[in-house]
Amino acid sequence: MDFRGAHILTVNQFQRDDVELVFQVADTMEPYAHRLRVTKALDGAILGNIFFEPSTRTRVSFGCAFNLLGGQVRETTGMESSSITKGESLYDTARVISGYSDVIVMRHPAPGSVAEFARASRVPVINGGDGANEHPSQALLDLYTIKKELQANGLTIDGMRIAMVGDLKHGRTVHSLSQLLKMYQKIHLRLISPQELRMPANIVSDLKAAGHEVTETDDMEAGLQENDTVYLTRIQEERFDSKLKADIYRGRFRLNQAIYTRHCQPNTVIMHPLPRDSRAEANELDADLDQHPNLAIFRQADNGVLIRMALFALILDISDKIKDSTKELGWYTGGRFGT
Amino acid sequence: MDFRGAHILTVNQFQRDDVELVFQVADTMEPYAHRLRVTKALDGAILGNIFFEPSTRTRVSFGCAFNLLGGQVRETTGMESSSITKGESLYDTARVISGYSDVIVMRHPAPGSVAEFARASRVPVINGGDGANEHPSQALLDLYTIKKELQANGLTIDGMRIAMVGDLKHGRTVHSLSQLLKMYQKIHLRLISPQELRMPANIVSDLKAAGHEVTETDDMEAGLQENDTVYLTRIQEERFDSKLKADIYRGRFRLNQAIYTRHCQPNTVIMHPLPRDSRAEANELDADLDQHPNLAIFRQADNGVLIRMALFALILDISDKIKDSTKELGWYTGGRFGT
Amino acid sequence: MDFRGAHILTVNQFQRDDVELVFQVADTMEPYAHRLRVTKALDGAILGNIFFEPSTRTRVSFGCAFNLLGGQVRETTGMESSSITKGESLYDTARVISGYSDVIVMRHPAPGSVAEFARASRVPVINGGDGANEHPSQALLDLYTIKKELQANGLTIDGMRIAMVGDLKHGRTVHSLSQLLKMYQKIHLRLISPQELRMPANIVSDLKAAGHEVTETDDMEAGLQENDTVYLTRIQEERFDSKLKADIYRGRFRLNQAIYTRHCQPNTVIMHPLPRDSRAEANELDADLDQHPNLAIFRQADNGVLIRMALFALILDISDKIKDSTKELGWYTGGRFGT
Repeated sequence: MDFRGAHILTVNQFQRDDVELVFQVADTMEPYAHRLRVTKALDGAILGNIFFEPSTRTRVSFGCAFNLLGGQVRETTGMESSSITKGESLYDTARVISGYSDVIVMRHPAPGSVAEFARASRVPVINGGDGANEHPSQALLDLYTIKKELQANGLTIDGMRIAMVGDLKHGRTVHSLSQLLKMYQKIHLRLISPQELRMPANIVSDLKAAGHEVTETDDMEAGLQENDTVYLTRIQEERFDSKLKADIYRGRFRLNQAIYTRHCQPNTVIMHPLPRDSRAEANELDADLDQHPNLAIFRQADNGVLIRMALFALILDISDKIKDSTKELGWYTGGRFGT
Repeated sequence: MDFRGAHILTVNQFQRDDVELVFQVADTMEPYAHRLRVTKALDGAILGNIFFEPSTRTRVSFGCAFNLLGGQVRETTGMESSSITKGESLYDTARVISGYSDVIVMRHPAPGSVAEFARASRVPVINGGDGANEHPSQALLDLYTIKKELQANGLTIDGMRIAMVGDLKHGRTVHSLSQLLKMYQKIHLRLISPQELRMPANIVSDLKAAGHEVTETDDMEAGLQENDTVYLTRIQEERFDSKLKADIYRGRFRLNQAIYTRHCQPNTVIMHPLPRDSRAEANELDADLDQHPNLAIFRQADNGVLIRMALFALILDISDKIKDSTKELGWYTGGRFGT
Repeated sequence: MDFRGAHILTVNQFQRDDVELVFQVADTMEPYAHRLRVTKALDGAILGNIFFEPSTRTRVSFGCAFNLLGGQVRETTGMESSSITKGESLYDTARVISGYSDVIVMRHPAPGSVAEFARASRVPVINGGDGANEHPSQALLDLYTIKKELQANGLTIDGMRIAMVGDLKHGRTVHSLSQLLKMYQKIHLRLISPQELRMPANIVSDLKAAGHEVTETDDMEAGLQENDTVYLTRIQEERFDSKLKADIYRGRFRLNQAIYTRHCQPNTVIMHPLPRDSRAEANELDADLDQHPNLAIFRQADNGVLIRMALFALILDISDKIKDSTKELGWYTGGRFGT
């Protein structure tokens, strides 16, 4: 695809080459995200960070990525209290708001709403999550993290073994990640979930059709064996009919230091899209692993900034120009980034 | 008036020369707002965007205008949850907040509140809407749009024919626009509304005293004939005693493709202050006109950025200096602005 | 202490030398805060302004301070509606959010929460208020104001006479200010409050142990005599069991023009941490003193920006570099700052 001026709405719009271009550009963003150098490539540009529902980390991650490229951010949260309640259509909102910025990130609870907004927008729109539907930058940062973590272990996405654990029925992130994995080769997937929260059948058959080996189980201990990566998820309580129904499954699939040591291979990378539920009744990923070198969950969040910088750079076609507008960073950082 | 360091509180503070100076400066803002060039004239300046009630588009439009001039924006929405509830006076709020920025835009639900705030402020204050009272930048952008649209048809504000349609009793925008029109000559106004929602009598008599020809009617079809501009408004439901009373009038005065073709002159400009109510029961301006070349409603919103840039430039006295701090725009835009 | 890369969590972490270093750097910030010159020392840096409860003036003051040094601000208010409700720990929030900025200001209703957050953060954290516990930049700006105001009268903090008035039991600001005063010499403190709202006994004994003269009284008129500074406070209604209990004390200790003239020495400086409660039933500091030259309350708020700029400059180690990145201010200010 041609990223220049494009909307980023779904992982299905990418070919493998596109994904790898995003990763390649993301790699070049490290010096800026890790506060080694400063770039002003987007000096004067404006991001419209339009959130129709709260999502602090996604909002701040996109905003930070744009600032790191030198741009300004105008944003809004909870637009539901605004013109929408006066009967304004998404078409009108898009036409007006797209006059206020050079690129838009939009999050909205209704599936399909961001694509509808994008059709009316005069500037590129990135989907920052439309309900249970899509959140493409999350899928990209997940796969980018897998690639970097495995690379350190001498492995590649092609041929890797990955377990996905938890609420695979409702988890948007594992659905989108699976879409991306279809473009790669010979992956061994273990899908570990309660029977009732299994990965949707069409995703499983698509993965198999792509030549991957997929096994499904509700036996956590068996499923954890012989993986390069374990990707844990939270019970998506907000997608259940009632909290009670969610409670049935909460806490049934947990990873902690003891289980990891007993069942996982030594170098297994631990991932989680965050937020993780650390309340005693859930605790799907125990804090006793917080200092573990293979716990990649915070590197995952950091990689989100790199991926979002890469998307902005490709859409606004500045990836080649960043070096020309670079300068030394003038303040004390303590070298704590990227750690 | 001398714009330098001045508060912008009401359209009544302007002479015709002042309005035309704003328009002239707004014209020079086009290359920056349309992302052809970047200026850093306000590099280091801070806008305090203080909204005591939500108004996403006004807030973002002002913030964007300030960013486009190179400045930073600090903002707040819903200050009612804050110091005000601890018994703080507007005087104190103004004294404190005006120490945090170079210029303030304030919106507040209470008529007169912004003027009271401005009296205590140490920096210039722009009224971003004080309840049913004033919203001067909206009136300026409306008139600026009329001027530009008519100009394309070889016409001027002097001598033009304009229909105002809908809730003329509660519509702040048509009141303020009428104030500005008093400074022009020989305008033909058709005021189309239900009897109960007529334009206030004092505004009508002021318009007549200014030498304009004013006719009032509740017959939409007759009123639409022979105008250069039709300015539609939304039923201001929030100003009615009850939703039921608003419902009586909703949907009675509609414009759509068929009505436009049957009753309006070919080049009649269609305006609306937005948001328009697109719900089936209201739908005062139908989406079947969205591709019509004379539909000016989104150009109107875009013009708001130009007008707000012009106000900042005049108040902060940088309109002559903008060119000196200009540079090429470094990213891909697709040329979609101003379209 | 070494400010470089340090968290600022409590006034107890400072020695007198540290406090005086902050004041000295704050003095150098005046030309930038008073809009005489512009600095870009933090061009490219990002502040994470993370507010778990609303506090408009503190949030905007910190954000403005960071902008005045040339940096960008990403912020959030009311994070309670976000990941926290999905069971996320402060540890996780800190690990993630600290990947998005170079320094964080955090406010949270729970005492101790900011210190907990700081332990997990990879970047320096400034406590912007953690419930009834600490708000160190407020204490520093209070003492800085006292120093500057007394200096104009030829006095110093050592040896000064100060009255603290009102709700000394719940007032976080008078507690923190007292902590700082312990590092100075031979201060005469008059603590004026109802019996039930007296300064906590341990703070009083600490002050005495530091060699200060402390007298407590519930007789406002007697207490106001012979002070260099009078520091008034609001009844902290939100810390009482009920509004009714707060009402008992509201309005019992008031200062106005008549009382000031009758009981205070001519040059007594009047301070208040703001917001002051100006409702008739409270009105602890009457508006009839608003034009009084010794009313320092708005200079106090302005000094907050200087102190916050100084903290950022010390933590990020740019205080020596600011001059090198300075330029003329290009817009009209009217010289109203610092007035």
